[in-house]
Amino acid sequence: MFQMPTKYVFGKDSHKGIGELVKPYADKVLLVYGGGSIKRNGLYDDVIASLKAQGVDYMELSGVQANPRYEKVLEGIELVKKENLQLVLAVGGGSVIDTAKAIAMCIGSGDVWACFSAGAKLEAALPVATILTIPAAGSEVSPDAVISYKGRKLGFSSQKIRPVVSVVNPDIFKTLPKNQIANGVCDMMSHIFERYFTQTQHTDLIDSLAEATLKTIMRNALLLMRNPADYEAWTEVSLAGSVAHNGFLGCGRVQDWGCHAMEHELSAQDEKVAHGAGLAVLTPAWMRYVYSENPKMFYQFAVNVMDIKPDRDEEKVILAGIDKLAAFFKSLGQPNSLQELGFSLNAPLEKMAKKCSGEGFVGNFKPLYWKDVLSIYKACL
Amino acid sequence: MFQMPTKYVFGKDSHKGIGELVKPYADKVLLVYGGGSIKRNGLYDDVIASLKAQGVDYMELSGVQANPRYEKVLEGIELVKKENLQLVLAVGGGSVIDTAKAIAMCIGSGDVWACFSAGAKLEAALPVATILTIPAAGSEVSPDAVISYKGRKLGFSSQKIRPVVSVVNPDIFKTLPKNQIANGVCDMMSHIFERYFTQTQHTDLIDSLAEATLKTIMRNALLLMRNPADYEAWTEVSLAGSVAHNGFLGCGRVQDWGCHAMEHELSAQDEKVAHGAGLAVLTPAWMRYVYSENPKMFYQFAVNVMDIKPDRDEEKVILAGIDKLAAFFKSLGQPNSLQELGFSLNAPLEKMAKKCSGEGFVGNFKPLYWKDVLSIYKACL
Repeated sequence: MFQMPTKYVFGKDSHKGIGELVKPYADKVLLVYGGGSIKRNGLYDDVIASLKAQGVDYMELSGVQANPRYEKVLEGIELVKKENLQLVLAVGGGSVIDTAKAIAMCIGSGDVWACFSAGAKLEAALPVATILTIPAAGSEVSPDAVISYKGRKLGFSSQKIRPVVSVVNPDIFKTLPKNQIANGVCDMMSHIFERYFTQTQHTDLIDSLAEATLKTIMRNALLLMRNPADYEAWTEVSLAGSVAHNGFLGCGRVQDWGCHAMEHELSAQDEKVAHGAGLAVLTPAWMRYVYSENPKMFYQFAVNVMDIKPDRDEEKVILAGIDKLAAFFKSLGQPNSLQELGFSLNAPLEKMAKKCSGEGFVGNFKPLYWKDVLSIYKACL
Repeated sequence: MFQMPTKYVFGKDSHKGIGELVKPYADKVLLVYGGGSIKRNGLYDDVIASLKAQGVDYMELSGVQANPRYEKVLEGIELVKKENLQLVLAVGGGSVIDTAKAIAMCIGSGDVWACFSAGAKLEAALPVATILTIPAAGSEVSPDAVISYKGRKLGFSSQKIRPVVSVVNPDIFKTLPKNQIANGVCDMMSHIFERYFTQTQHTDLIDSLAEATLKTIMRNALLLMRNPADYEAWTEVSLAGSVAHNGFLGCGRVQDWGCHAMEHELSAQDEKVAHGAGLAVLTPAWMRYVYSENPKMFYQFAVNVMDIKPDRDEEKVILAGIDKLAAFFKSLGQPNSLQELGFSLNAPLEKMAKKCSGEGFVGNFKPLYWKDVLSIYKACL
């Protein structure tokens, strides 16, 4: 099943129409954002002007940080209830959007955290609108949110929290620092990898769409590394970031999500680890560990995505593809070992692996029990 | 702007869940279909059983034909009003779905035809659900309908008539005759061409997604010509038919639609002309007529889609690509001239060209005034 109900508005200056876009849903909204960058670059002023022009009133919740916390969600819920707000407008990246989604859940659940921690049913949610400031997480088009609370980082998914409106203006991204560009690129590529590598057979069309999206991201990411203000490259990368995570590339196939699970333990262990950087370290190691479960799929990846020359020696082609991907991540300035991520040789890898897989396994391409996860972590040392 | 609100349900036996899918919208529906084929292949019985299992009552409107007529729409509207029906369920191809959409418009407009003929505003529409029986028109995911009345064949477009639910079960298509397969394939390829060939610059990602979709259609269409019961090939072709027309491949670019406009005059002139067959004749001729307006785009098409070897002689590559496309259409059993379509050398081509372009032009890649349309028609003799 596929559905993409979000009204996805893309292009230069598109954020200036936000007032008109949210007006059908609300006369009074909660505006959620992170630090002060949107005030420095003029985005905040544009948004307020657009809301005011449409007579849309607003309250503000600022200070959302990376790995967003439930405490901030509770602050937002209090504002929503006290002020009877009708829509949550996120202006930010994945953390801000996920916070907005969790706040929006308050009208459909007496205890929002219970949805995350215990899968409590969500009956309804306020509409969520977004203006994207960092292309990476894909939260602008997804039904998912990830929130941290009391040492746990948990996800929740429901069509009810999928944004009703998302605005993507590539012009906004040109002031992003290179490490954020690189982390975003690795995250969106991983969103495709997690869907692409599958044991499901006969997936030609979506395979080829995934391959085309990956190649577009890689080609344009290199342009952005040279010139972060390249508007045209941003149009490709930011649109691809939404395509990577709107769900279509996962249709009709068993998805993996092993690397995301393994990475969450890295960030949980050390909050300074950026999600995209963790994925850049883990992904090539995961590939080398699992490819023999279905070499055909990795051969296809090497040839179609990494442009490795076809050869009868299947394994040579596969390994060349993985090496080339690792070299690409390095060319973005990403680390390629746990040490470069900041871990010491004494990091509690076994404990982390057990926390990751629990009694069962993560991933589907090859089910990864804790010993498998540990092997992959060790291969990253 | 992109939005795909249709709940798109794909897979073997998926049609058996139709009762559950429409139940949230309606207790009583209008079931619209064409001839008796759905009774012969068991689809009708499955649908009725599923509706009954959910306690969904239904009235029937059958006998919708190709190039669907407004008279049939009026019959449906009468039933909807008399029986207070709450949803229109189309079980068929584009003609049946377009008829269902036009019927659904009756609650939002006092005179549905005025929407088609005079662009009257549509305030609301009943929800439409579909079970696809012929992959071709893409109406299962589009906001468009085309209806004929009093010698005119007119289109109308509104998000309000976009299906809320569409079910695609590739298993249903295996009894389609080869000419219908070929016509469907040409129609869906044209839906991509009309978007792909553009003067808009910097469209990398969507270009490459369009190219991947075209290649998947062509590769699998040839499999279906050999074995129309090839389920796996049908999964690729039918999913691609929806991707071709759900709107995403047209985002952010000026679209063309010249070939569709020129083909509508062929079908209007002779009702026996199948839309897909008309497009197969016109498309290569259109390409030869317009490529010099932006040779880079046609060179890209030749190399990336038609697998022509890159060469410094740009024109040679372009023409080889077009020739190879024409040969592909021929390999599907399509005609490649107006005569083979059934037109005589005395066909009123000038009159048709003038009716097509009117005082203005059709198409955007190169605006086609009536003299241009006439030149293309003549090139098809």
